[in-house]
Amino acid sequence: MLNSRWFLEFTTKDEGSIQSLIEVIHSSNTEFQRLEILKLGSFGKCLILDGKIQSTEADEFIYHETLVQPAIMSMERPEKVLIAGGGEGATIREVLRHGSIKEVTLVDLDREVVESCKRYMPEWHNGVFDDPRVKVVYDDARKYIESSDEVFDLIVLDLPEPFDSGPVQLLYTKEFYSIISGKLTTSGCLVTQATSSAVHNCSAFKIIGRTAGEVFPVIRPYTVNIPSFYSPWGFIFASNATDPVKVQKKELENKIRKVEGLSYYNSDIHYSLFSLPTFLQKGFKEESRINTDDDPISFY
Amino acid sequence: MLNSRWFLEFTTKDEGSIQSLIEVIHSSNTEFQRLEILKLGSFGKCLILDGKIQSTEADEFIYHETLVQPAIMSMERPEKVLIAGGGEGATIREVLRHGSIKEVTLVDLDREVVESCKRYMPEWHNGVFDDPRVKVVYDDARKYIESSDEVFDLIVLDLPEPFDSGPVQLLYTKEFYSIISGKLTTSGCLVTQATSSAVHNCSAFKIIGRTAGEVFPVIRPYTVNIPSFYSPWGFIFASNATDPVKVQKKELENKIRKVEGLSYYNSDIHYSLFSLPTFLQKGFKEESRINTDDDPISFY
Amino acid sequence: MLNSRWFLEFTTKDEGSIQSLIEVIHSSNTEFQRLEILKLGSFGKCLILDGKIQSTEADEFIYHETLVQPAIMSMERPEKVLIAGGGEGATIREVLRHGSIKEVTLVDLDREVVESCKRYMPEWHNGVFDDPRVKVVYDDARKYIESSDEVFDLIVLDLPEPFDSGPVQLLYTKEFYSIISGKLTTSGCLVTQATSSAVHNCSAFKIIGRTAGEVFPVIRPYTVNIPSFYSPWGFIFASNATDPVKVQKKELENKIRKVEGLSYYNSDIHYSLFSLPTFLQKGFKEESRINTDDDPISFY
Amino acid sequence: MLNSRWFLEFTTKDEGSIQSLIEVIHSSNTEFQRLEILKLGSFGKCLILDGKIQSTEADEFIYHETLVQPAIMSMERPEKVLIAGGGEGATIREVLRHGSIKEVTLVDLDREVVESCKRYMPEWHNGVFDDPRVKVVYDDARKYIESSDEVFDLIVLDLPEPFDSGPVQLLYTKEFYSIISGKLTTSGCLVTQATSSAVHNCSAFKIIGRTAGEVFPVIRPYTVNIPSFYSPWGFIFASNATDPVKVQKKELENKIRKVEGLSYYNSDIHYSLFSLPTFLQKGFKEESRINTDDDPISFY
Repeated sequence: MLNSRWFLEFTTKDEGSIQSLIEVIHSSNTEFQRLEILKLGSFGKCLILDGKIQSTEADEFIYHETLVQPAIMSMERPEKVLIAGGGEGATIREVLRHGSIKEVTLVDLDREVVESCKRYMPEWHNGVFDDPRVKVVYDDARKYIESSDEVFDLIVLDLPEPFDSGPVQLLYTKEFYSIISGKLTTSGCLVTQATSSAVHNCSAFKIIGRTAGEVFPVIRPYTVNIPSFYSPWGFIFASNATDPVKVQKKELENKIRKVEGLSYYNSDIHYSLFSLPTFLQKGFKEESRINTDDDPISFY
Repeated sequence: MLNSRWFLEFTTKDEGSIQSLIEVIHSSNTEFQRLEILKLGSFGKCLILDGKIQSTEADEFIYHETLVQPAIMSMERPEKVLIAGGGEGATIREVLRHGSIKEVTLVDLDREVVESCKRYMPEWHNGVFDDPRVKVVYDDARKYIESSDEVFDLIVLDLPEPFDSGPVQLLYTKEFYSIISGKLTTSGCLVTQATSSAVHNCSAFKIIGRTAGEVFPVIRPYTVNIPSFYSPWGFIFASNATDPVKVQKKELENKIRKVEGLSYYNSDIHYSLFSLPTFLQKGFKEESRINTDDDPISFY
Repeated sequence: MLNSRWFLEFTTKDEGSIQSLIEVIHSSNTEFQRLEILKLGSFGKCLILDGKIQSTEADEFIYHETLVQPAIMSMERPEKVLIAGGGEGATIREVLRHGSIKEVTLVDLDREVVESCKRYMPEWHNGVFDDPRVKVVYDDARKYIESSDEVFDLIVLDLPEPFDSGPVQLLYTKEFYSIISGKLTTSGCLVTQATSSAVHNCSAFKIIGRTAGEVFPVIRPYTVNIPSFYSPWGFIFASNATDPVKVQKKELENKIRKVEGLSYYNSDIHYSLFSLPTFLQKGFKEESRINTDDDPISFY
Repeated sequence: MLNSRWFLEFTTKDEGSIQSLIEVIHSSNTEFQRLEILKLGSFGKCLILDGKIQSTEADEFIYHETLVQPAIMSMERPEKVLIAGGGEGATIREVLRHGSIKEVTLVDLDREVVESCKRYMPEWHNGVFDDPRVKVVYDDARKYIESSDEVFDLIVLDLPEPFDSGPVQLLYTKEFYSIISGKLTTSGCLVTQATSSAVHNCSAFKIIGRTAGEVFPVIRPYTVNIPSFYSPWGFIFASNATDPVKVQKKELENKIRKVEGLSYYNSDIHYSLFSLPTFLQKGFKEESRINTDDDPISFY
C-alpha cells in the first residue's frame, strides 16, 4: 500500500522530489525562514529550510566530510576556522576531528535554527556546541567577516543556495571573496558549497568557480553525490597558496590515520574528488560570467 | 506559474521524483512492458520502461560512457562484444568508438522497444544499427548466451533493475555469471549496471558485487552520478585477467586520444571511478549474501 | 511558498488528491488496517484508514447528517438503532439527537480505531460513547447482525468502500441486505453509504442501489457533496414500508424544530437530496448487475 | 502499475488534484494565458487555462446545463443572450436548445482559446459557432457590455475564478453588476459562476452573492457538484423581476418537454438546486462584505 504522507520539494521549476514522511518532529516560522525537522522514510531525520532539504541523518556525513576534509587535510596545522552557516553543527564536528584546531567560530543568521538543531539533532553536532573552542555568533556572515579584525586558516561557507532574494545571494560574489581573501592566513583556504553540478543544471556552479578564480590564484572545483540532494553537488576550494591536488599521498595518509570517525573520505577519494568529467572541465574553461554584488545570480 | 503536467516515478517505496512533462512522443504496451518516450522539461527526450526512466537525452552520455569505456579502454584490442539489453543503441555507439571492434551483438527481449528507439531516439544510436558490424537478436539474454558457441572479449549487461518478477532477476545471479565466465576470452571482461549505490539503498549493489566476486578473480565496483536516476549509480566490472586500475596512465591516454566524442570519460575519471568511499569499501568487505537463481534479489 | 508536507490519496487509479499536512496526530497499524489521524491545512483533523480519508473536522457534519437524518426524520418514533462501522462516533451523535432513541448498538471490527477516535477526535463523538443508551461491540457486522435475535428500527451501514479484498465486500451484497431485511421492524429502514456518485465513476453506486432494490420494495438513492471526498457521494435508503419522499413537509418541520445542532440538513434539503439528475435516474433504471456474495464488486 | 504521467492542479494553497494524463492534444501560450487541451484518464478531453481545469468531456454537461437552464427555463420567451467567457461554445449550445432565441453574443478576451476550442473540442460546441444567430466578439467583457447600446434577456458570466490579478477580478464587482442591471430587459436575468461552495472554502461565493444582492432585488445562489472541479460549485442567479423558485412546476415541465439532449437538468433538479444547506443559508445572511472595483476579492 502506497504511503499517504509525503515531503515534496521542487528543486527546480521542472524537477521535484517526494519522500515518504514519518513524523513532523518540529515545525516553525523563524524570524528569517520556515524551519522543519522531519523524519523521512528514506533518509531519516532531516533539516529543511524554506522547503529545501539541508541535510539528512542518512547522508549528512557525505556532505560534511566532503565540505571540510579535502581542505583541512591539505593544510599544515590549521588552528582558526570560521564557518558561515552550518547551524546543524556537523561542520564544526568535522573541523574538530583535527587536533591542531584552537578556535572555531560559527556565524549563522538564525538563532532559532541553531537552537533547534542543538535540541533535536544531536546525531549531527554530537555535543560540539559545548566544546570550549567553539564560539557561535548570530549575525550576517558577510558583515561579520568584513568587520572582523581576525584572520583565519580556513573559512567554510556552508550556506543555502543563492535563491533570488535575501542576503545569501551576496555570499557568492567576487566582492565577498575579496573580503575573505583579506581575512585568510598566507596558506589559508576557502571552501564553499556551490550548488548542483548536474549536467543540465550546473551553470551556477561554473559561475561560482569562475568568480572565485578572479580572486584566488588556486581554485579547485569538486563534486560529490549526496543522495538527498537528488543531484551531484559542487564545491569550490580556493586559496592563495594551498593546492589540495598537490598534497603528497603519504603525508595525507599519515594525517588521515590520526583522525577517527570518517565514513566517506579517504586518501583515494581525496584525489578522485578533484577529477572532473570532460564536460565540466570544458565548462569551467568556457564560463565567462563573474558573479558580482550588482547583479548576483539566482539559483532557482 | 507551476507546470501542470508531470512525470512521476517512485524509485523506492519511500522515494519518488517528479519531472515536468513537455510532450508524449510515444506510448504503448509492448508484449513485455509499458513503453514511453517522453520529453521532459529537465532532461529532454527520455526512454521509460514500466514507469522507470532508462536514459535521457541530457545525461545518457554519462551512463553509457561509464558503462562501456572503463572496461573497453582497459583491454588490448577487443574485437567481439555482446550487449544484453541496451535497446537505445547508445551502448553500441560507445563500443563502436573503438577501431578494433569487429562485431557487436545486441540481445534484447523486446523488439518493439528497439524499433521505437531506432525511430524516435536517433540522438542515442546515431545510426549504429545500420553499421555492418552490428547484429541485433530478439531473445532472452541468458538463453542466448548459454546456447551460444561464441566467445566474446566484452560482455555488457545493460539491463533494467532486478525487480521482483520476470526474467531480468536471473541476469544478476552467480549461475549467470558462471555462464558468462565460460563465454569470455582469456582477458575478456564483463560489465553490468548494478543498481543504486546510494548509502541508504545500496544493498543490491553490494550483493551483485559479492556475487560476481564468487565467479571472477578480479572485480571492481564503481559508481557515477546520473542525475536522471536521482541517485549515485553502481556498476560492477569483472574479469578473469584484466584489471582496469592497473592500466598504465600513459597507455590509457594514448587510447583516449584516438577516440572521439567523449564528454564524460577521461583518464583522470578512469581511475577516480574506482575509488570507493569508505562506507562502500567496508560494505563490500562485509557483504555475505550471494545472489542465486534459487532466491534472487529484488531491487524495489 | 509552497507547502512541503502533503497527504496524498489515490481515489481511483486515475485520480488522486493532495492536501497540505500540518501534523501527524496519531499513526499506527491496527490488527486490521493502517490508521492515521492527521491535521490537514484544508479540512483540519481527519481520520484516515488504509490511506483513505474517512471523515474530516471541516465537513464530517455533511456526511453524518446526510447519512442519518433523512431516514430517521422519516420514521415515527425510532427506538433501536444499529450502526455498522462508524467508529468516529459521529453517526451515534446524529442518532442521539432524537429523543425517542432508546438504544444504539455500534458494531465495528476494529477496537483500536474506536479507541483512537474516542481519544483523539472528541469533535466527532462529543462524548456519546459515555451515553448509557450506547453499546459498542467489536465484531464483524454481518456475523453480528446475522446471529442477533433483535430487530432494529434503523440500521445504518457506515462502512469503507468495498475494495477488492476483505470482509467489507460482503457488506454490500444482496445476501446481506436479505439478512438485514429480516432484522428490521415493519417500518424499519436501512441506510448505507454507497460510494462515489460522480458521473464518470458511479457504477458501484448504481449496482448497490439495484441490489438493494432486489430486496426492498422502497429504495431511494440520494447524493450529497462531501468536499473531502473530492466527489459527489451516493447513499441508498431502503425500507419495506417507509418512504422519505412521502413524508409531509409540515410534519418534517415539526420534527426538525425539536432537534438541535444541525448545520447541513433542513426540510428543503430533505426533499432535494432525493432529486436525482437525469443521467442517474436513467442509470438506475438501466443497471442490471446485482451484487452477490459469489462475485462481489470491488470499488477501486 | 501506477501511471507515470499526471496532470497536477493546486486548487488552493492547501489542496490539489492529480489526474492521469493520456495525451497532450494541444499546448500553447496565448496572448493572455497558458492554454492546454489534455486527455485525462478520468475525465477524457479537457480545457485547461493557466493550469486550471475549465471543463471536461465527462462532466461539462453538468456545469453548462446548470449554468444556463435554471435561468433560461424561468423566463417567458428569451430572445437575446450575451455570454461573457465561455469560449468552449457549450454555453452557447445550452442557450440554443431554446427555440425562442434569436441572437447569442459571446464576448471572450482570447481569440486563440476560442479558435482552439472550435478546432479540438467539437464535443462541446457541437457546431454552434456556425449558427447564424451566434456572434463572437473578442474583447474585454466589461468594456463591451458597458459600451453596448443593446439590452439582453439573459447575461451569462462564464468566467474563470477571480484570481489575484487581471481584468477578471472586475467581472465580479458591484460596479459591474450595476452596469449589467442597466443592460437587461425588464424581466431579464443574470447568471454567474461563483467559485467553490465547499464549506471550508466558500467565502468568495458568499461575497459574490451578497454583492449581487446589493444591485438586484432577486438573487438565488445555487450549487451543484462538478466532479472535475473537486468541490461543490456555486452560481448566483440575479434578476430585477424573475424568480426561478416561483416558476410553476407544470409550466416548467412543459418547457423541458420541448428541449432535447439534457442529461443533468430536470424539473426536480430545478427546485432542488436552489435548496441550500443550513450553513450556506446562514452564511449568506451573515456575509457583510461587498465586492467593489476598489478592493476586489481574489479567490486563491
